[in-house]
Amino acid sequence: MKTPEPKHANDLPETANWHRKDLLGIRELELRELETILDTAAAFKTVGSRDIKKVPSLRGKTIVNFFVEPSTRTRTSFELAAFRLSADVVNISATTSSLQKGETLKDTALNLQALYADIIVLRHSSAGAPKFLAERLDSSIINAGDGAHEHPTQALLDAFTIRERLGKIEGLKIAIVGDILFSRVARSDIWALKKLGAEVTLVGPSTLVPRSFEEMGVKVARHIDDILDSADVINLLRIQHERQRKEYFPSLNEYIRFFGLTKARAARLRPGCLVMHPGPINRGVEIDSEIADGPQSVILDQVTNGLAVRMAALYLCSTAGRKTR
Amino acid sequence: MKTPEPKHANDLPETANWHRKDLLGIRELELRELETILDTAAAFKTVGSRDIKKVPSLRGKTIVNFFVEPSTRTRTSFELAAFRLSADVVNISATTSSLQKGETLKDTALNLQALYADIIVLRHSSAGAPKFLAERLDSSIINAGDGAHEHPTQALLDAFTIRERLGKIEGLKIAIVGDILFSRVARSDIWALKKLGAEVTLVGPSTLVPRSFEEMGVKVARHIDDILDSADVINLLRIQHERQRKEYFPSLNEYIRFFGLTKARAARLRPGCLVMHPGPINRGVEIDSEIADGPQSVILDQVTNGLAVRMAALYLCSTAGRKTR
Amino acid sequence: MKTPEPKHANDLPETANWHRKDLLGIRELELRELETILDTAAAFKTVGSRDIKKVPSLRGKTIVNFFVEPSTRTRTSFELAAFRLSADVVNISATTSSLQKGETLKDTALNLQALYADIIVLRHSSAGAPKFLAERLDSSIINAGDGAHEHPTQALLDAFTIRERLGKIEGLKIAIVGDILFSRVARSDIWALKKLGAEVTLVGPSTLVPRSFEEMGVKVARHIDDILDSADVINLLRIQHERQRKEYFPSLNEYIRFFGLTKARAARLRPGCLVMHPGPINRGVEIDSEIADGPQSVILDQVTNGLAVRMAALYLCSTAGRKTR
Repeated sequence: MKTPEPKHANDLPETANWHRKDLLGIRELELRELETILDTAAAFKTVGSRDIKKVPSLRGKTIVNFFVEPSTRTRTSFELAAFRLSADVVNISATTSSLQKGETLKDTALNLQALYADIIVLRHSSAGAPKFLAERLDSSIINAGDGAHEHPTQALLDAFTIRERLGKIEGLKIAIVGDILFSRVARSDIWALKKLGAEVTLVGPSTLVPRSFEEMGVKVARHIDDILDSADVINLLRIQHERQRKEYFPSLNEYIRFFGLTKARAARLRPGCLVMHPGPINRGVEIDSEIADGPQSVILDQVTNGLAVRMAALYLCSTAGRKTR
Repeated sequence: MKTPEPKHANDLPETANWHRKDLLGIRELELRELETILDTAAAFKTVGSRDIKKVPSLRGKTIVNFFVEPSTRTRTSFELAAFRLSADVVNISATTSSLQKGETLKDTALNLQALYADIIVLRHSSAGAPKFLAERLDSSIINAGDGAHEHPTQALLDAFTIRERLGKIEGLKIAIVGDILFSRVARSDIWALKKLGAEVTLVGPSTLVPRSFEEMGVKVARHIDDILDSADVINLLRIQHERQRKEYFPSLNEYIRFFGLTKARAARLRPGCLVMHPGPINRGVEIDSEIADGPQSVILDQVTNGLAVRMAALYLCSTAGRKTR
Repeated sequence: MKTPEPKHANDLPETANWHRKDLLGIRELELRELETILDTAAAFKTVGSRDIKKVPSLRGKTIVNFFVEPSTRTRTSFELAAFRLSADVVNISATTSSLQKGETLKDTALNLQALYADIIVLRHSSAGAPKFLAERLDSSIINAGDGAHEHPTQALLDAFTIRERLGKIEGLKIAIVGDILFSRVARSDIWALKKLGAEVTLVGPSTLVPRSFEEMGVKVARHIDDILDSADVINLLRIQHERQRKEYFPSLNEYIRFFGLTKARAARLRPGCLVMHPGPINRGVEIDSEIADGPQSVILDQVTNGLAVRMAALYLCSTAGRKTR
């Protein structure tokens, strides 16, 4: 029997529209760049249904998952995306890095670059940390979440999932519910969905959704009931009650009363309305169990699509980085 | 020089006797299933003596080591088994998983499945956790130890080692010594060895080896001296004195006095009697150093055979899983 | 498009001069052995500039990074070196190993060997731990730092970097500044540089650089100013102020005053003098920021060369190990 070998992805779209070595945020992307990532992700998604779920595109490339703020979900997703591209992956966490010994972020990153890290995937509690490194390193930097600033691959997987399920994003009514003020997911989602032509409504109390968000071209609603019968997509952000700032956040019961997607409320959704959540979900808080597991929920599709989107991000940044390096 | 490539294992036995996507325990297995795993492991063991110790059988497959209860030994063994099958491996521990954020075990596992995890190797402190997941997921589940319930790959490597050294298991007199009541290793060993035709005697104080075990078709002895001159195999379980429940367990000195395999006792063993231990050993407690390192000890063979048995388990479950998925 | 495959390194030097299965320290090496490692590293360094940064030399080999004392930098460097040689790597730390359960170092290592570990890379707080294992195991042992004894791959990367930049080592004046007494880096550096023909001067207070070091054939200076205008290379050791023994160590300000490479002092260095540091650097303590980032600094070259040197060490020990096993 012959040794099976990973084959390249078919139908990889033209990468001529992508010139960035880094993926730092959605805000700076042009529409055609967004579309290039989504189209590349679509091509890579087909790899998941193969018997050998790998392409050799990044063989011999080194990817460092540098998670100064811990996140097993996102780290695992990037790690598996790298494996599928046949890259080598090293994981470094805050507690084990030389940051512990007082080394600066820049010096740690320069050391990784000196070890030929082609791509550094950075999760950091400070907004702007990925940009800071991107400007100083030849290695590609992919932002895996920085403070309350951006989480671009999450927005891309959200957009991918909506486009895959509903065929388009332009003109859709999309509601994002919860703690918008402190959410990098919300910010990246808003940038992505607005650029792709959606009509976005933010839902939450005034402490978490100040009117100033309207400057981003979105609407604001104060009660989930206001958007139930019109939304094409409803995206419920995770409540991190233990970490939530008490002065901004109502009690959990109050939150459920005004913003939880209960079974009763879900009954009022339009039949084709998608229910999304970045996970991990709090069953019975943001969403009732039955709805999370129901036919409108695309929560696990989001997870699956995250892999394809991250493959696309790694592939595109690596390819563009090689041109400039 | 040509690039060396891993080759397939020769003489892989017919997998027609294996239809399970999961390996949850020994209790539920039929004799021919047990024998299929052992025969497959024998074929894979020859890979270890090759210059390139790999086969491409699971290339492109994703294996998640999900260890909610820590165990570097078992995790490393599964990780190396996966590498030898050319699979990709991700390690997730309890402290880093989303379980920490209040996510349910099922939701964490569904997320892993959404990331195309072909096999989840689960170590969990609760008996039944692997079965719970196996019934709800398409991914294969391999039980790497659940509470005091089962540890099937440990029993398989024990059986493999005995069969390899003594040529058969049927009719052998096998003693298992120590804390049987709280031991998943003992339970899995008993099921495996009884099915394979051995005569099993459990040795320990009544608090740790209640008479009710006789319902499993085994004998019970209260003193290690009772079995020394008749045993073909003596398997000494690890004493985890720090974790041992005080109300059940004698003092360490008392334990050594009644159950330790001292040099004096070892002199009474039959010449061909095998001395086994699942490790890590407490030298001077369950076993004297000289005996642990002596010619009758097969303790390190057990470790080596664990790799072959785990390759077989991963391979068989993956193959059967693919048929049904 | 054809699947790209890693190719072998060109111009690998004759390994006939290398017969050791282990790399335990520099002290025991003969000059031609040192040169064999450096030449092999030079051949492997060219792999870093390839599009596919891999050679298949150790495909199917198992390398265990066993770091009983934590060190992400060294661990990552060895891990990436192993990836480039196409080996499989497992990481084991002190906190996760069975050492925690009271298993002896030897038993843990024998278990790794029973899992077919071809090479164990050991970092340990006790001097002599690697040698202890090397004498008892067939697996190759590479010392990744043992107590205050040796850190051979650090010395090799230092020598490699000097040779690469200055064309030779023989006859060079090389100063090593800082805490020599407790530094394994200093000890390995002294052995390597002396064997390769350099004139080594140690710089530090009498508590940290006792006169007894002169028995190693080196000079001792008490003030960094004494060597500034004559040195061809100045190697600044890391101050681990938090771990430094108070009875030996001056205050941080005092240290900077007598031993810090300030901008003013750097102006007195010879134009071609190399500035080295094993990292992570304390900017403003051992070295001013501008000098660390300046044209004489080869600090990041050292990191890059560490990869090549570790590939050479893994490759040579594996090859010699195979002959004897």
